[in-house]
Amino acid sequence: MTEPSHYKSNLRDLQFNLFEALEVQKTALGRGPFESVDEATARELLETFERVCTNEVASSFKEGDHVPLKLDGKGNVAIPEGLKRSIHAYFDAGLHTLALPAHLGGVGAPPTLAWATFELLAGANAAVGFYIFAPVTARTLDRLATPEQKRRFLPQLVEKRWGGTMVLTEPDAGSDVGAGRTVARKVNPGGRNSTASPASGGGEVPHDDDLYELEGVKRFITNGDFDAADNIVHLVLARPEGKGPGTKGLSMFIVPKFWVNEDGSVGERNGVFATNVEKKLGIKGSATCELTFGDGIPARGLLVGNVHDGIRQMFHIIEHARMAVGVKSLATLSTGYLNALAYAKERVQGTDLGAGRDKSAKKVRIVEHPDVRRMLMAQKAHAEGLRALALFTASVQDAVELEGGHDAGSAAANDALNDLLLPLVKGYGSEKAYELLALSLQTLGGSGYLQDYPIEQYLRDAKIDTLYEGTTHIQALDLLLRKVARDGGATLQGLFGRIRHTVESNEGGDALAAERALLRTALGDLEATFGALLAKLSESLYHAGLQGNRVLFALAETTIAWLLLRHAAIALRRKGENPPDAAFYDGKVASARWFARNVLPNVTLTRRFVEESELSLMALAEESF
Amino acid sequence: MTEPSHYKSNLRDLQFNLFEALEVQKTALGRGPFESVDEATARELLETFERVCTNEVASSFKEGDHVPLKLDGKGNVAIPEGLKRSIHAYFDAGLHTLALPAHLGGVGAPPTLAWATFELLAGANAAVGFYIFAPVTARTLDRLATPEQKRRFLPQLVEKRWGGTMVLTEPDAGSDVGAGRTVARKVNPGGRNSTASPASGGGEVPHDDDLYELEGVKRFITNGDFDAADNIVHLVLARPEGKGPGTKGLSMFIVPKFWVNEDGSVGERNGVFATNVEKKLGIKGSATCELTFGDGIPARGLLVGNVHDGIRQMFHIIEHARMAVGVKSLATLSTGYLNALAYAKERVQGTDLGAGRDKSAKKVRIVEHPDVRRMLMAQKAHAEGLRALALFTASVQDAVELEGGHDAGSAAANDALNDLLLPLVKGYGSEKAYELLALSLQTLGGSGYLQDYPIEQYLRDAKIDTLYEGTTHIQALDLLLRKVARDGGATLQGLFGRIRHTVESNEGGDALAAERALLRTALGDLEATFGALLAKLSESLYHAGLQGNRVLFALAETTIAWLLLRHAAIALRRKGENPPDAAFYDGKVASARWFARNVLPNVTLTRRFVEESELSLMALAEESF
Repeated sequence: MTEPSHYKSNLRDLQFNLFEALEVQKTALGRGPFESVDEATARELLETFERVCTNEVASSFKEGDHVPLKLDGKGNVAIPEGLKRSIHAYFDAGLHTLALPAHLGGVGAPPTLAWATFELLAGANAAVGFYIFAPVTARTLDRLATPEQKRRFLPQLVEKRWGGTMVLTEPDAGSDVGAGRTVARKVNPGGRNSTASPASGGGEVPHDDDLYELEGVKRFITNGDFDAADNIVHLVLARPEGKGPGTKGLSMFIVPKFWVNEDGSVGERNGVFATNVEKKLGIKGSATCELTFGDGIPARGLLVGNVHDGIRQMFHIIEHARMAVGVKSLATLSTGYLNALAYAKERVQGTDLGAGRDKSAKKVRIVEHPDVRRMLMAQKAHAEGLRALALFTASVQDAVELEGGHDAGSAAANDALNDLLLPLVKGYGSEKAYELLALSLQTLGGSGYLQDYPIEQYLRDAKIDTLYEGTTHIQALDLLLRKVARDGGATLQGLFGRIRHTVESNEGGDALAAERALLRTALGDLEATFGALLAKLSESLYHAGLQGNRVLFALAETTIAWLLLRHAAIALRRKGENPPDAAFYDGKVASARWFARNVLPNVTLTRRFVEESELSLMALAEESF
Repeated sequence: MTEPSHYKSNLRDLQFNLFEALEVQKTALGRGPFESVDEATARELLETFERVCTNEVASSFKEGDHVPLKLDGKGNVAIPEGLKRSIHAYFDAGLHTLALPAHLGGVGAPPTLAWATFELLAGANAAVGFYIFAPVTARTLDRLATPEQKRRFLPQLVEKRWGGTMVLTEPDAGSDVGAGRTVARKVNPGGRNSTASPASGGGEVPHDDDLYELEGVKRFITNGDFDAADNIVHLVLARPEGKGPGTKGLSMFIVPKFWVNEDGSVGERNGVFATNVEKKLGIKGSATCELTFGDGIPARGLLVGNVHDGIRQMFHIIEHARMAVGVKSLATLSTGYLNALAYAKERVQGTDLGAGRDKSAKKVRIVEHPDVRRMLMAQKAHAEGLRALALFTASVQDAVELEGGHDAGSAAANDALNDLLLPLVKGYGSEKAYELLALSLQTLGGSGYLQDYPIEQYLRDAKIDTLYEGTTHIQALDLLLRKVARDGGATLQGLFGRIRHTVESNEGGDALAAERALLRTALGDLEATFGALLAKLSESLYHAGLQGNRVLFALAETTIAWLLLRHAAIALRRKGENPPDAAFYDGKVASARWFARNVLPNVTLTRRFVEESELSLMALAEESF
């Protein structure tokens, strides 16, 4: 007998986003690098993912939480058996090849489809989702490594289902990555790459010229060690001897758990060991490790691409990870909402509020109570809004790939837009999903607090999202001081222009006129907010610190309201074309209306806060806190 | 070697509230029922509580979370040894007698002092706090029981450190208490109390006329069984045979775990057994039990006061419990904040934001970062604001006691004000403490997610507060449909009048003129909010459901801003009189300013939401969710 799955997917809304709103069948599928995937294949893949994730992947959700990870005395981490089964089921179904290009044995799906399926994986079991990191490592090496490094590690990394990690954080260098102290010593110091200046890289390199030994301690390494993979490829930031301070002096190294010889054969244990596994609030099945490099046994690593360009290289992975965290957040909120909805439709409690004190009135299911409807709609509108934002961002990534990829000049505009949106997906997504999951729990009353239902675990598993891969405030500073500032606001203005186009159009007709008007007001307030912030920043950068999160939220909320409005317009049109789905389309319109009415007023408030921003908090003596 | 205590109390702010703001030494201490407590005694008691709670009570905080409760096959619950030691240490220090009147062997302290000390207990270890329920049971029976029942149970209940519970909830009757199905059968049906009409009660009753046998299943009973007490006195709502449906048909019974004979001697095991212990998100040390009555062995109970008036009787305890939950919430937020503050003052990370990209700039402690200051001040202002609200409410309870108590006509006005404030203390306190604790955790970055720090447990332990003793929305409906409505808004207008008095005064002088202006605006918007809601309610009661929580929050925020403003005015004055405490007083002013500027704008927004309240959400088809 198997328990019913905790995971409740929203396949219909994923389909709506991909095929009705973004129309990936017209914009991406079958084109360029995505030529081998057509609409029928994409739809079938979505359904396969949904089935495998809801069943095999989700089956170890609770076990991963309850059965402790074990660190043996030899630096190895054992994970619960159920998690291993879930990981292998995912690999067995071949789902890990979805986003890999054909030359790495992959399906070659566009980012839209990849992120849609990642929602299913992360919602079903986020711990499992992050153990399957090899495809990300493979794509990173495919882009950055030397031909020799690629031959050595690709494609066995994926075929053999190895693990992968990204290794940045140190005990005294969390948000401040540049303070890292892990060092890398060149093994053959006479080689080309012995100087401090970056080499051009990319070609064949002299024998062992890319070989280093690392020494240091890293912390908070997601899945830093686990026993579901025969090998793990760590991508590690370390500072080569002689390099300067800060992030600029960091280089990226391939440090395998078991050494990989030049012919690709696997050799002896390399000197990287798990020396601690953190005990956490949630996502307990995911092994958050302290990794010690080069203590006793040398930790050999290869300089990625044989160039010293670590932080830029690592940012390819960081950006992927930030997107992944944002999608994980919305995935968790979505299943939280759908669990709450299912409960509300079953649970009978109290009489209709309109019946007042008539004790003989019929008992009703709680989905009929206005406060429960309010809580459900808040969850629904945010889950759909965050999904719309994430998949819109993914569609920009589609465009980047179609335009020649990240490094191509022709993709620069969409690349910049993707960069601008990522802190919203991650920063706003993680904060709001966690906040709204409290309403999922509250919908169940006291039962929500029990381990009998998955929501208490969702809440715990989701809280990490505001912290890892850059805290919410790191996202805000990234947005304001980097993404907005670096092109003088041009990319931001481009986004504003698209929103303005909608509010000045007749999209959605009379039915959505009120929502367009609300969005117009919000856009005006948002533009004024950025104007006010710019003026304030000339006074002090502290205003970015004090107001940054708020401004990020306001931008995210305006963007989401815009996307939901567009979705509602589509839904109104589609409702006529597709009557059996009328209830779904009505729900889309309701979400857009609710979000515009209940969330957009925050933007007006944000304008006021930014306009009135002052620095007294910075002047307050520490002793007065 | 003992670990340092997780618990960081704020004794100074408690002293400020009691002796500088409320001036209990003038208003309550040494007067009437509080005559035996003077200021020196009160201050000393506070310090003793602080010491015992921070040390002995807090010492089992983690153990209570980590060591599982055990339910044996015989209906008995075993709790961890550390929790027992903490409970006994509290009793050993005599702290449980603080709020008991002298004739029950107590100190006779006023509610202000009692709730101030409860903050220390609940913040140090909330699970322990709720195991010490006998004083509440004793005061309830002292007020409601027959002389014979009192002789039988008082004072041994307190002296022998028995446990106590309140037993309302049933599996199918959570928020809807009146749906309870537990029945009570009269053992001697020929007696006086065999009819369905309430008896006058209060005097001596014929032998066994108050004796019943109960049958049914209750759920979510806090500390329904535990092995740190020789006996447990359950106060149980059940429906006597022949009584009508709803809450009006419920009566309250004394059901001891071990039977208590008429001479007070303890007899055999009574038929009430723990049949399940819930596995929860937090407050795991507290045994949340399913209790089964009268399955096999009769569950004998005595009709409290020998009158059928159960729901009104139980409300005395419910009100106490709601206040306790609100104080628990703020206690947890306060220690969360102070833990975050301590971390922020130590942790070095990154450079001053004002230094921009100067990588050679000195690393600073995170308390110097603006976003960290923002998070800290949000926690501080809310923790102090909730404390001000709770202790102001407690001072109203002082007045009620001084005016002859709950049932005295002379106390009616203050009693009504207390009733009005309780849903704010509980509803707003529980929601905001949980919300702000996320910032306590966030202040620590990734470390906040670890079990190495207490904040992740605070978060888990605090989430129950929005659920038990009436969910937040139950508080909102209680506020609007009962507390505000029952006297036509007179008590609410009385509170508005007090706030208006402050905004029209020169309290705090020029230094707080801006804050008085903000409060004036908020008060106007709040009055308009209630006006708008009244108009909406004539259309449909659903508006109370849709807007209720928001309106409760707005009332709480305005009231808190008012109290903090008054505190700031006092602090400005006291700063001159007491220079060594200048930093503390500056902090009080900063909290008031921050709250007025950052929180009061919500009230303006609430007005808009209520004015625009509409019912489309109620019309949405269930299938569209």
